[in-house]
Amino acid sequence: MAISRPLVNSIRSFATKTIPIRKFSPRKSSKMVAAASVSHPSELTVPNKTAHSFDKSTLDALLARRFFFAPSFEIYGGVAGLYDYGPTGSALQANILDAWRKHYIIEEDMLELDTTIMTLSDVLKTSGHVDKFADWMVKDVKNGEIYRADHLVEGVLEARLKGDKEARGVKEEEKKEEEDDKKKKKKKVVKAEAVKLDDNTVAEYEYLLAQIDNYTGPELGEIIRKHKITNPTTGNEVSEPVEFNLMFESNIGPTGHIKGYLRPETAQGHFVNFARLLEFNNGKVPFASAQIGKSFRNEIAPRQGLLRVREFTMAEIEHYVDPLDKRHARFNEVKDVVLTLLAKGVQSEGRTEIVKKTVGEAVAEGIVDNETLGYFLGRTQLFLTKIGIDPARLRCRQHMANEMAHYATDCWDFEIQSSYGWIECVGCADRSAYDLTVHSVRTKQPLRVQQRLEQPRTVEKLECTFDAKAFGMKFKKDATMIKETLLGLEKDKLQCIKDELEKGSSSVKCADGKSYEITADLVKINPITVTEHMREFIPNVIEPSFGIGRILYSVLEHTYWAREQDAARGVLSLPALVAPIKCLIVSISQDAQLRSKIHEVSREMRKRGIASRVDDSSATIGKKYARNDELGTPFGCTVDFATIQNGTMTLRERDSTSQLIGPIEDVISVVDQLVKGVLDWEGASQKLEAYSGVQDVDA
Amino acid sequence: MAISRPLVNSIRSFATKTIPIRKFSPRKSSKMVAAASVSHPSELTVPNKTAHSFDKSTLDALLARRFFFAPSFEIYGGVAGLYDYGPTGSALQANILDAWRKHYIIEEDMLELDTTIMTLSDVLKTSGHVDKFADWMVKDVKNGEIYRADHLVEGVLEARLKGDKEARGVKEEEKKEEEDDKKKKKKKVVKAEAVKLDDNTVAEYEYLLAQIDNYTGPELGEIIRKHKITNPTTGNEVSEPVEFNLMFESNIGPTGHIKGYLRPETAQGHFVNFARLLEFNNGKVPFASAQIGKSFRNEIAPRQGLLRVREFTMAEIEHYVDPLDKRHARFNEVKDVVLTLLAKGVQSEGRTEIVKKTVGEAVAEGIVDNETLGYFLGRTQLFLTKIGIDPARLRCRQHMANEMAHYATDCWDFEIQSSYGWIECVGCADRSAYDLTVHSVRTKQPLRVQQRLEQPRTVEKLECTFDAKAFGMKFKKDATMIKETLLGLEKDKLQCIKDELEKGSSSVKCADGKSYEITADLVKINPITVTEHMREFIPNVIEPSFGIGRILYSVLEHTYWAREQDAARGVLSLPALVAPIKCLIVSISQDAQLRSKIHEVSREMRKRGIASRVDDSSATIGKKYARNDELGTPFGCTVDFATIQNGTMTLRERDSTSQLIGPIEDVISVVDQLVKGVLDWEGASQKLEAYSGVQDVDA
Repeated sequence: MAISRPLVNSIRSFATKTIPIRKFSPRKSSKMVAAASVSHPSELTVPNKTAHSFDKSTLDALLARRFFFAPSFEIYGGVAGLYDYGPTGSALQANILDAWRKHYIIEEDMLELDTTIMTLSDVLKTSGHVDKFADWMVKDVKNGEIYRADHLVEGVLEARLKGDKEARGVKEEEKKEEEDDKKKKKKKVVKAEAVKLDDNTVAEYEYLLAQIDNYTGPELGEIIRKHKITNPTTGNEVSEPVEFNLMFESNIGPTGHIKGYLRPETAQGHFVNFARLLEFNNGKVPFASAQIGKSFRNEIAPRQGLLRVREFTMAEIEHYVDPLDKRHARFNEVKDVVLTLLAKGVQSEGRTEIVKKTVGEAVAEGIVDNETLGYFLGRTQLFLTKIGIDPARLRCRQHMANEMAHYATDCWDFEIQSSYGWIECVGCADRSAYDLTVHSVRTKQPLRVQQRLEQPRTVEKLECTFDAKAFGMKFKKDATMIKETLLGLEKDKLQCIKDELEKGSSSVKCADGKSYEITADLVKINPITVTEHMREFIPNVIEPSFGIGRILYSVLEHTYWAREQDAARGVLSLPALVAPIKCLIVSISQDAQLRSKIHEVSREMRKRGIASRVDDSSATIGKKYARNDELGTPFGCTVDFATIQNGTMTLRERDSTSQLIGPIEDVISVVDQLVKGVLDWEGASQKLEAYSGVQDVDA
Repeated sequence: MAISRPLVNSIRSFATKTIPIRKFSPRKSSKMVAAASVSHPSELTVPNKTAHSFDKSTLDALLARRFFFAPSFEIYGGVAGLYDYGPTGSALQANILDAWRKHYIIEEDMLELDTTIMTLSDVLKTSGHVDKFADWMVKDVKNGEIYRADHLVEGVLEARLKGDKEARGVKEEEKKEEEDDKKKKKKKVVKAEAVKLDDNTVAEYEYLLAQIDNYTGPELGEIIRKHKITNPTTGNEVSEPVEFNLMFESNIGPTGHIKGYLRPETAQGHFVNFARLLEFNNGKVPFASAQIGKSFRNEIAPRQGLLRVREFTMAEIEHYVDPLDKRHARFNEVKDVVLTLLAKGVQSEGRTEIVKKTVGEAVAEGIVDNETLGYFLGRTQLFLTKIGIDPARLRCRQHMANEMAHYATDCWDFEIQSSYGWIECVGCADRSAYDLTVHSVRTKQPLRVQQRLEQPRTVEKLECTFDAKAFGMKFKKDATMIKETLLGLEKDKLQCIKDELEKGSSSVKCADGKSYEITADLVKINPITVTEHMREFIPNVIEPSFGIGRILYSVLEHTYWAREQDAARGVLSLPALVAPIKCLIVSISQDAQLRSKIHEVSREMRKRGIASRVDDSSATIGKKYARNDELGTPFGCTVDFATIQNGTMTLRERDSTSQLIGPIEDVISVVDQLVKGVLDWEGASQKLEAYSGVQDVDA
C-alpha cells in the first residue's frame, strides 16, 4: 500500500513533520510559503532591546561556547541527529520540564506515568506505527548512497530552477541566497548549474515543489523517472522509492523471537495502562495521564539542529473524557486567553490570515471543536509564553481535513517561528475513541468506563443480531472488529444502516480506516425496548503532545539579542523561571574579606533554594556580567567595600543593566521574591534604592 | 578469549551483578552465603512498629493495587524485565531523583548532563562493552530454548541436591523451602526428584555451586558435559555455551553501516564530553559531572522484579581529580558519618564480620583509599538513610582484588538487604585514569588538564627516545598506546624499566590489561634535566553510580509494615521527603459546607507548594486513612463541624496515628514545616494541642 507523508503524519502528527508550511494547501502552497515563511534570518522579529539584526551564527557560537548543547560523541566524529545537553542546556531543560510538571501535572492533578522506551512490536503494530510510520528513500544503484526521496526531488528541482534563474541573468538574488544558505549552515543537496529551462518546465517544477510533501512513494518514483533525477554527486540513477520505517528496531532477549522498537512517542504507554489508571481514579472520567520521557525516530537524513533529531524528550498528556460531555470544569479560567488562530477554513482557501480570538470565542463559534480542547489550547498558550516564547511569533494552526487522521475530531498545532520558519512544537488533538478501541479490540480487554445511571431508564434501542457463522466466514479475523464497531454505533447511524440493509446492503467504517460491506443475511437490526441501569462507553482522548527540544531551542532564539554597543555581546533574556542560574554573586575585587563575604551570601541563597553561582575568578566585573548575560542569568549581586562598611550589596538586572542597592538581607529577600515571580523589577525598585556607582560596560 | 563473569563485572560493576554474595570468595563462599544472606523473608528485620512478620506477597499486592508499578504492556501479556511506574511509583521516583539532584548536583555544584541513550558502537568498543559486556548462554539443541548457562547449571545441581536430601529423608525442611519459594514467586528452573547421590558427588556439587559465578563459558561447558546436564523441561542436550552481548543493538540511519547500542550506563556520555566540561570549568579540576537517565541491558532471562530489569534509571557522578591530590575540600563535613564496612581483608579470609567506622577513621586507617572516595561514601550513606533506607540493613562492601577491574584503585558497593538478599544498589569506584585514557588514545584528542606551575621548576627526568620505525613495526596498532603508557609512567616505575632494559628486556602493562615486552633497541631511557612551567595530567575519575529502581524498591520494603490489629492493613512509612503525596485532606462527613472547606484548605496548601490530595469520596474516615497509609502519605488533615464553629482542623500523623488540633492556618503552617523537614512530630506537638476525638480504626 502506498503511504503518503500526510498519512504518516496522521498517525501521530508531532514528531513526523518537516516545516509544515508546505502542507497547508497542496495545490496553492508555493505562494503561501513565500507569504508565511521566513527565508532570511535577518528578517526575523527580534527583541526590541537590540539595534542589531538577528545573527544565527553568533547565537550558535554562544550556545556552543556556553555548552548548551553539542553533537553527541563529537570526539568520535558525531552522528547526525544526536545531541547532548551540557550543564546549561540540561539545567534549562530541567527547569522547563519542572515548569511543565507544575503547570500541568501538579496544578491539574494528572496521573503521571513512567513507561518503558523499549516497546513490544505488537503494541506498535496495533497503533499503526509498524505499518505506517515510514518515509520513502531511494538508493544510488551503483554506490548505494541513500537519499530521502522527497528531499532528493526537492533538492534537484530547486537547483535546476536556480540554474535557470542564473542563466536568465538573475544573479544578484542568487548570490544573496547562497550567502544566506551558508549562514544557515543548511546542507544543500545539490549545486546549481546555469542551464536555462523552458517556461513550461519551470511552471511544472514549481508545481511539483509546491506539493512535494503530498506525493506517495510510487508518485515520487514517477517524478524521478520523468524528470531524469539522478544522484547529484555521482550522476548515477537511483532506485525506486522504498519505505523505510522510522522506528529503531531491536530484539528483546536472546531468542530473536521477541521484536521490540524504541517508542516513537510516549502515548502508547498511557493507553496500554488505561485500565489500571481508570481503577486508580475510582472508575471515573474525566482524568488525565501525563508522561515526560525520551522518544526516538530513525530519521533518514536529519538536518535542522535540535528541531529534527533521532532522540528527543517529549511531554504528553492523554485526557480521557466522556464522548457525550467534552466540557471542562476549569474552562472559565482560560476563556479569556487570546489565541492567534490560523483556522482550517482560511487555509483551504489558500490564505494565511490569522485571527486573534479568545478561547471562549473560538469554542463558542465552533472554530475549536469543544471546551476541553479549547481549555488545553489556552493552558498551552499560557505555558509557552511563561517560559519565554514570544507571543508575536506563536500561532495555533488547525489541521485541514486531509491532514488529520480519519478518526480525529479536531487538531491544532502550536507553531513557533524561528530562523527555520514556522515549526510545530505542540500538537493538540481530539483523537476520539480510536486508540483505546484498537488496543481493546486487539487484546480483548475492555477499556471502557461503566457509569451507574442515577435513575434506571427505559430506552428504545436497535439491537444487532448476527448470524455468527456466516459473519465469521465472510470477515474472518476482522469479524470481531466489525461487530464491535456496529455494537458501538449511535442509534442514528445504526438506523441509517438498518434502512440501507432493507434496500440490499450497507457498509461499516471501522477503526482500521476501511469500510466493510454487510448484508441483511449477516446481521439483523431490530428495535427493542430495554431498561438500563448502567451506561458503558469508551472514553475519547484529547492529547496535548509537546516536543521539548523544539520548544527549548525556540526559547533560546526568542530570548537572544545583542547589546547595542557590541553585536558580539549576546544576551539570553531567559525568564527567571527557566534560567539555568538565577543569580550571580561577585565581589568588586579579589580582597580576602570580600571573597569570604560572597561565599556567605551564596550560603544564604542556597538556604532559600535560589540556584546561584559565585564567580570568584580574576576576571573584571564587566567580563563576569557579560559571561552571565550569555548564560541568561537574570540577576547579579555585587559586594564591594561598602558591604564591609555598611552591610549593603548591589543588585543588577540583566536586561536593563540597571542596579539597586540595599542591606544584604533585604537584597537576598528581593532576589528570592523576584525568582519566585511574586515581585517584578519595578516592585524591586520600590523596595531598594537606585544605584549608579559601578559601570557595567567593560569586557 | 574466554570471559568470566568477574571480568564482565570489571567493566562496570553496578549493572551486571546478580546477588553478589556468591562472589566474595570463590573457594569459601558457600558458608558465607548461609551466614550473610537471608533465605526466608520472614527472618528479615522489619520495622518495630508491627507485630506481624514481613510478608512479601501482601506488599506485592499493595504495590499492584496502588499502582506503584506493573509489568509493561500487561494487556499484551508483558515481557520479562520491563516495568511501568504508575502515578504513585512515578511520584516516588521523581521525589527520589529530586532529592538526589539537590543532595549531589545542587549542593555540590556539579555539571549536569543529558547525553543520548543511542550510542555509537565505536564509543562502546573503546570502553570495552562491545567485547566484554556479555553473559554465557546455552540452547536446547532440538527446540532452541535458551538458558543462561550459569543459571541452568545452578538450577539442575540445586535440584539434584534437593532430590538427594529428599531421598535421605530430610523432608521437613524441603517442604518449608518449597512454600517459601511459592511465596517469593521465584521461578524455579528445575523440579527436584528424590534420587540419592553418593557423598563425593554431593561435595562436588556443593563446591561447583559455591563458585558458580566464577566459571568461564568453556568451563561451564565442561561442567555441563561432565555432569550430563540437559534441558530440564525436554531432557534434550544443550549446546556449548556461547557469549550473548547484553547490549540492545540497532542501526542508526537507513544504511545499516552505522551501528548503535542503547547505552548500558550513562558514564560514557560523560567521558566523551570531558574536554567541553573541563573548558566549562575554566580548565580546573576537581569538578564533577552528573547525569540521571535510562540505561538498558538485554538480560538473557531476567527475574527478581525491579531488581533485575532490561530498562532502568541510573544516576551517575563522575568526579575528576588530580591523581596526586585526592583530598576533598568538604571532607570534614562527612568525616563523622558512621559506615558499616565489610572490607576486602575480612572477605578474603572467608569471614563476613562487619565493622562500624567513621569515614574519617576508614580513610585514616587506609581501609578506604582516599578522601574523595571516603567523602562520597559518607554523602551516600546520608542520602540513602534520608530517603528511607534502614541503616541497619545497609552496608558498604569492598571489592576484592579479583573482583575489581585491573585499573581500579578501590571500589565499594552500598548493599541493601531486602527479601532478595544483600543487593548492590550503589557502586563507588576510583577508576583511575582508565576511561579518559582509552578514549583519548582512540580518538587522538587530548583529554588532559594543564596546570601552570606557580614557580618554574628544574627537574631530573627520565626521557624515552623511541626508534619510531622499529617500534611501529613491532607493535603496529598498539604502538601509540604503549608509547603513551611509557610517557605517562612515574619516574620510579620508569627507573625500574630502565634497569631491566639494561639487563635485556622489560614489559609495559597497558590500559587494555595486557603486558607488552620491550627491548633496548626499541626505546632508550636517559636522565635529563628540564625546566617545567606547566604540569599536564589525565585526571582520575571517582564514580558513584546509583541504580534508582533498586533503591526505590528497597525503600518500599524497608518502610512497609502492617498495623497490629490487622496484618492486611499495610503502611508505607515513607519519609515526607519522598512520599508521593504529603498530605491527605478529608472531611468528617459529606456535608456541603465541609466539602467546600476541604477544597479551600487544598488551595491554600497548593499555594505553599505542598503536594496534597483531597479525598471527597463517600468512604468512611477510617477507610480513607487506611488508603493513604498504603500510599505512604505522612499527614492527614480532617475538617469537622468544629471547623465551622471554631475554625479548627485536626492533623494526623501516619505512623503513630496520633492527632493534634489547632486553627486551620496554624495546622497548614505546621504541615508546611513538617514537609520541609524543619519540624518533627514532637515539635509539632508543642505547637498544636493533642486531640483524641476521632477514632482511627475502621476499614
